[in-house]
Amino acid sequence: MYNQYFYGLGSAKSCIRELFEYGLQQAAVVGKENVFDFSLGNPSIPAPPAVNEAAIDIIKNEDSLLVHGYSSAPGFADARDAVAKELAERTGTEIHGADLYFTCGAAPALIAVCKALNIDSNTEILAVAPFFPEYRPFVESTGSKFVYVPADTEHFQIDLKTLEAMINEHTQAVIINSPNNPSGVVFSRETLEKVAAILTKKSEELGRPVYLISDEPYRELVYDGVEVPWLPSIYKDTLVCYSYSKSLSLPGERIGYVYVPEKMTDAKEMFAAIAGASRVIGHVCPPTLIQRVVARCAYEKPDLEAYDVNRKLLYNGLKKIGYECASPDGAFYLFVKAPGGDGKAFSEKCKLKNLLVVPSDDFGVEGYFRLCYCVAKETIEKSLPIFEEVFNA
Amino acid sequence: MYNQYFYGLGSAKSCIRELFEYGLQQAAVVGKENVFDFSLGNPSIPAPPAVNEAAIDIIKNEDSLLVHGYSSAPGFADARDAVAKELAERTGTEIHGADLYFTCGAAPALIAVCKALNIDSNTEILAVAPFFPEYRPFVESTGSKFVYVPADTEHFQIDLKTLEAMINEHTQAVIINSPNNPSGVVFSRETLEKVAAILTKKSEELGRPVYLISDEPYRELVYDGVEVPWLPSIYKDTLVCYSYSKSLSLPGERIGYVYVPEKMTDAKEMFAAIAGASRVIGHVCPPTLIQRVVARCAYEKPDLEAYDVNRKLLYNGLKKIGYECASPDGAFYLFVKAPGGDGKAFSEKCKLKNLLVVPSDDFGVEGYFRLCYCVAKETIEKSLPIFEEVFNA
Repeated sequence: MYNQYFYGLGSAKSCIRELFEYGLQQAAVVGKENVFDFSLGNPSIPAPPAVNEAAIDIIKNEDSLLVHGYSSAPGFADARDAVAKELAERTGTEIHGADLYFTCGAAPALIAVCKALNIDSNTEILAVAPFFPEYRPFVESTGSKFVYVPADTEHFQIDLKTLEAMINEHTQAVIINSPNNPSGVVFSRETLEKVAAILTKKSEELGRPVYLISDEPYRELVYDGVEVPWLPSIYKDTLVCYSYSKSLSLPGERIGYVYVPEKMTDAKEMFAAIAGASRVIGHVCPPTLIQRVVARCAYEKPDLEAYDVNRKLLYNGLKKIGYECASPDGAFYLFVKAPGGDGKAFSEKCKLKNLLVVPSDDFGVEGYFRLCYCVAKETIEKSLPIFEEVFNA
Repeated sequence: MYNQYFYGLGSAKSCIRELFEYGLQQAAVVGKENVFDFSLGNPSIPAPPAVNEAAIDIIKNEDSLLVHGYSSAPGFADARDAVAKELAERTGTEIHGADLYFTCGAAPALIAVCKALNIDSNTEILAVAPFFPEYRPFVESTGSKFVYVPADTEHFQIDLKTLEAMINEHTQAVIINSPNNPSGVVFSRETLEKVAAILTKKSEELGRPVYLISDEPYRELVYDGVEVPWLPSIYKDTLVCYSYSKSLSLPGERIGYVYVPEKMTDAKEMFAAIAGASRVIGHVCPPTLIQRVVARCAYEKPDLEAYDVNRKLLYNGLKKIGYECASPDGAFYLFVKAPGGDGKAFSEKCKLKNLLVVPSDDFGVEGYFRLCYCVAKETIEKSLPIFEEVFNA
């Protein structure tokens, strides 16, 4: 006697996880150096030295009862202030520590927001394909419906007409993820301003806000100076979900936040609803040592050099072979059109050569595959001839 | 437009939190030394030195990408093995790392278990009063009904007849918390064996297990050599929820686990359901540095000397005045009968003297108040004359 839905969620292996485990098995057979695993989006550059220096200094010199003791539910006030200060300076907007609710990473941030936005069993949360597959269980488990706007496969921006048509009386929010996982694309200011115009119009028609949920763990991972517009400045009813997983290479430490702009509709009530939702998912007071670390490292920037080298090497190599690829301006992914048009079949074909690529189906679009280029440079160099082989096979 | 239930949960202040904040206000008026705050259950002894030594050593000498990278969803295999090994030795039973699902503390452990045990909207989870007040939102938010066995106010063990009578076709589990918050009482082996006999009988009648959920963050906080029986050895269908918050004084670091005994009914399916539930509450891969720390500190024991001194001082002082108090064998709480019989009124009376005690109502029993004795010894010494004053007033 156990819950069948959760049993299903817990026993179903994701396609990515299966590929990863297949890679480990194959490595034991053919050697690690002959397996080319582009499946997992785990940062491959270490945390900046300042992170570990701060952690050691805090452990050695701050009061242990404070460092390891409970903070208040949304986090230490001074840590939230420090993070808000940097964010305010960077975005040129007014942001206070009290607007931030620290969370154990972006996942609980998104879940708390989705719970806070669930009004009844008809509530719909809209995502834009391609999307991070966990959005579906996150939304559905809160009692809302998960629906998505099909991908704009020309530019991997947003199909605005369809977005507009899909917003109805039950739509509470639209999830935006830019820089995008899996496409690596950054949504342009033009795209986002049009989204804001649509949401503003729909909010007026419906007489209540249609919120924007900006899931932005890759915010700082952009190349060639591409702009990542700050969404709350474009659309006031934006809830920002952030994680330090990628920017500080701390995915295991589970630290991030929800930012609830002071000027959004019902800001105080929304903050309280997020706090209440966090309580029943067991996310009050995120890990305290790391709270203090990110507060000290608020001005740290990731060193993207290694990712950028990989990005250019892989992107240019694939283009030369003849692959078509979405504009790789951010995150650490390439989203590539599958030769033959079937992402799953192509992934299987690659697997036979120990080349592990994730078919696009779980991301809500068919006919593509995702490559994560946070791997060793050598892996890319050695894999290109195989990419050429499977392209022509 | 936001979820009203979560708004309510997030905006309602707990009685404990209100008292604590009142204490801070009063401290600004009359001086910190004249406020006697027994409201908050925050450890007052620091983490053992080995904890910080391990953290620094791990940061300095282990691979940063491993230390701060994602672990698998239930935690690092080697860390789970290390914790299982000590637990197996201590309990004299067979426990493997694969039976442990690491969590961000006891709260998400309990929530995941309650979610895994929710079968339909009639599902009932039974607690025993007095109980930790968060059980109610934890259970109710999973869609189950929260019901409780009234307190045995004679010994604060368990009213077995009522427990037996309350188990029905919808009862999925009984939550046991020993050493108990708020009573400080440790359930005896005799009590627990009788509970096991009742659950065994009911499970046979119902043709399916009635599970026991053992919430035991205070497991190691016992005095005078009192036994805390290992429940899975008494009743095989026991799910253990544990946190290092109290035993290693790490409440802020959010690390604990669910133990799913290999021999329990549907153990594999239950583990999978807990994993699935953890996914939708955003608790996969608990904080990694602290995972590695608790693995290294598996054999560390808390230094209870300071708590024990406080316990005796406060308990003996109150008894001498004439207060009646539950047997204070564990945790760091005293549960005291309110003179006059009204816990709330007595708490208000104390407040006027800047003596902060928590009325028992939120714990599911009337007419008592809780004292948390993880405070400075001086606070206890200076408060006893005030306890005498309000007793006689």
